[in-house]
Amino acid sequence: MDKNIPYKIYLTEDELPKAWYNVRADMKTKPAPLLNPGTGKPMTLEELSGVFCTELAKQELDNDTAFIPIPDEILDFYKMYRPAPLVRAYFLEKALGTPAKIYYKFEGNNTSGSHKLNSAIAQAYYAKKQGLKGVTTETGAGQWGTALSMACAYFDLDCKVYMVKVSYEQKPFRREVMRTYGANVTPSPSDTTKVGRDILEKFPGTTGSLGCAISEAVEAAVTSEGYRYVLGSVLSQVLLHQSVIGLETMTACDKYGIKPDVIIGCAGGGSNLGGLIAPFIGRKLRGEADYQFIAVEPASCPSLTRGKYAYDFCDTGMVCPLAKMYTLGSGFIPSPNHAGGLRYHGMSSVLSELYDEGLIEARSAEQTSVFEAATQFARIEGTLPAPESSHAIKVAIDEALKCKETGEEKTILFGLTGTGYFDMVAYQKFNDGEMSDYIPTDEELAKSIATLPNI
Amino acid sequence: MDKNIPYKIYLTEDELPKAWYNVRADMKTKPAPLLNPGTGKPMTLEELSGVFCTELAKQELDNDTAFIPIPDEILDFYKMYRPAPLVRAYFLEKALGTPAKIYYKFEGNNTSGSHKLNSAIAQAYYAKKQGLKGVTTETGAGQWGTALSMACAYFDLDCKVYMVKVSYEQKPFRREVMRTYGANVTPSPSDTTKVGRDILEKFPGTTGSLGCAISEAVEAAVTSEGYRYVLGSVLSQVLLHQSVIGLETMTACDKYGIKPDVIIGCAGGGSNLGGLIAPFIGRKLRGEADYQFIAVEPASCPSLTRGKYAYDFCDTGMVCPLAKMYTLGSGFIPSPNHAGGLRYHGMSSVLSELYDEGLIEARSAEQTSVFEAATQFARIEGTLPAPESSHAIKVAIDEALKCKETGEEKTILFGLTGTGYFDMVAYQKFNDGEMSDYIPTDEELAKSIATLPNI
Repeated sequence: MDKNIPYKIYLTEDELPKAWYNVRADMKTKPAPLLNPGTGKPMTLEELSGVFCTELAKQELDNDTAFIPIPDEILDFYKMYRPAPLVRAYFLEKALGTPAKIYYKFEGNNTSGSHKLNSAIAQAYYAKKQGLKGVTTETGAGQWGTALSMACAYFDLDCKVYMVKVSYEQKPFRREVMRTYGANVTPSPSDTTKVGRDILEKFPGTTGSLGCAISEAVEAAVTSEGYRYVLGSVLSQVLLHQSVIGLETMTACDKYGIKPDVIIGCAGGGSNLGGLIAPFIGRKLRGEADYQFIAVEPASCPSLTRGKYAYDFCDTGMVCPLAKMYTLGSGFIPSPNHAGGLRYHGMSSVLSELYDEGLIEARSAEQTSVFEAATQFARIEGTLPAPESSHAIKVAIDEALKCKETGEEKTILFGLTGTGYFDMVAYQKFNDGEMSDYIPTDEELAKSIATLPNI
Repeated sequence: MDKNIPYKIYLTEDELPKAWYNVRADMKTKPAPLLNPGTGKPMTLEELSGVFCTELAKQELDNDTAFIPIPDEILDFYKMYRPAPLVRAYFLEKALGTPAKIYYKFEGNNTSGSHKLNSAIAQAYYAKKQGLKGVTTETGAGQWGTALSMACAYFDLDCKVYMVKVSYEQKPFRREVMRTYGANVTPSPSDTTKVGRDILEKFPGTTGSLGCAISEAVEAAVTSEGYRYVLGSVLSQVLLHQSVIGLETMTACDKYGIKPDVIIGCAGGGSNLGGLIAPFIGRKLRGEADYQFIAVEPASCPSLTRGKYAYDFCDTGMVCPLAKMYTLGSGFIPSPNHAGGLRYHGMSSVLSELYDEGLIEARSAEQTSVFEAATQFARIEGTLPAPESSHAIKVAIDEALKCKETGEEKTILFGLTGTGYFDMVAYQKFNDGEMSDYIPTDEELAKSIATLPNI
């Protein structure tokens, strides 16, 4: 081990970020604005404030302020589970026999099991500050719902979670964690909303989808006095809050003279990747440094690598604003054998724009190879990773093995977004040799992309 | 918040303990020796070495060496998940409105979810160093089996786990974590051992017990070439390894001028409590400081508060050495409504002796009150605690509320041994209002205590 660099770097409390970094301020081409699906015009603050808390709507529209101070109440909460350690993967390096140096930023040391808590607590705080009774949201794999439940319990807010029905049934323990934190969890589609009833009538026996749960949560928010809707990824405000990941990472790197050559993150809606790379992208945009950025997505839900950059609906019920993003079409649902999260049809507008400009790269990985990497990582580095995070592990290992061939001593940094403790059904499938891969055909993708609105 | 004391104290790598502390060296009356059940005489090193790794057998018998150096390979592994933070429970203090200062040492930030990994890695290391093929063990709630699987994966050792059948069936996810780390998990009683077959014949349809799984694991070890048996609690060697908890805690306390008045830990076999308090007990024994120590056990399995201090069998099959301990009798099984761990019939000989001398106190808690404390803690401090750990939380809250009444500004320290992510069946029962309490009657306890051997 390098005596100058601890196995795990924990920043001290006074080294923690006091402001979030808004990468949009440094982007020459700003991400395309959200559009009102009725008028086709950019959403105004007033319109957005009907769905989101006003302060969050402001953050969503703010393309100019580079640093937004983190309120003290949120800083206090962050201290419960932050700093997240930046870990030198000495054991993995040794096992691979690579000259590369590997680091990972580990966001799983909290009960929600992932980075999602960074934005959940911010969104709950602004809801409380606005005097709201509660918030509504959707959850698929359950990480976001758990994070939001914890945040709402802390601020004594009501929390209504629409959980994709198939997850509600297959992940009863996730549901119980949310209930333990006082959340009200409803399997979606449900008969508690009009959009839910419509979908149930049209597709009886459906096990739900993320897009459908979003529609229900939005309807529940706009039809209940004192409620707003909150979302755990995709939005620019979420990437803003998640910049705390990248800011901590950059401070730790600078403190110990670590200069990453490659920065890797898994990408579903983009909240983790966007947060991790934000300040590094900032340096690149300002010409202060250069890095290679790699987004890793599932081969079964390849929005960046095979999607189209266009305006699309964010939800199945088409009640949300339109967003310009790399998308597979709002009706796209990954094949049933898809095990982990990262199943959203589109990608954050910020990341989509950066990708379109060639500032970041994207790769896709098939899930059996992802679980192979996950198991290898668990046995060598101790921590059992979330399937989502394991996409980044897979590509980090690939890159480290390339260095072994070429002899390059690259510094590889990746985001370990969370733990897999509630994903053992998927691990069991892998352990039993029953996991399969699926890559959608060009025809399938063309069909779902054909549903994009004509804008 | 007190500006001088961080919310979470992480020691730096060079502040971490380099040697384990053996509290027996400072005890005036040593814990009673293990006895050979055949001869009634103290177990010799040779006899013990047939069951345990030789180096561990030496540690088991060593009542004199105060500090035993931690081998470098174990120190390296410790760096994967240690230091464990010492957390100031600012939010809990505020919610309770107590003048007390509350601290907890959190051991759950690793995939095994508990402190058990501290001893698992030590036992796996000595097995590897001795050139063994593998180890056998039993697991009930699954924390120990998971920890041992992780340790064996790291040292590439075979790992055979006998898992109490009822847990094997009710906790499939625990089982899958162990399998992911490469362990071989067998529901106990099984037909792979003679003692298992005998029990199955005598009690067809039994769902097993910890004492029975121990017997199977010991038989599997002594009848397989190149295997030894390892145990996750009760033994003096385990308390030795767990002293790393107390040593880190003491270093952190000394560094920040924190002087605990009361130190609280849950107690099943005693490994966590014994490890947490070891160096503090040492100071008390040497007359350097005084502390109040409280062991908290379930009212449904009250070995310290209602057991007898006597020699007893450690397992149902009566193949293990006899240990002098506070015990409820080796046939004692907690009532079926008992939800968490802490279900062993006896208590570590070291702790039993300290308790008998009045150096530590003991209290029992009923499980509904324990889950109330657990839920309160989760919502306020973020982390969802293991049911076992929540026994300590319950009494820490009780003590803090007493301070509220009296106005005393006591410093309360407790061990948060782990997380409850694999205990959601129990939380669900509590959330649904279906959890009940059970206190064994005097007659029941008298009956099971009457089975003690006549020594």
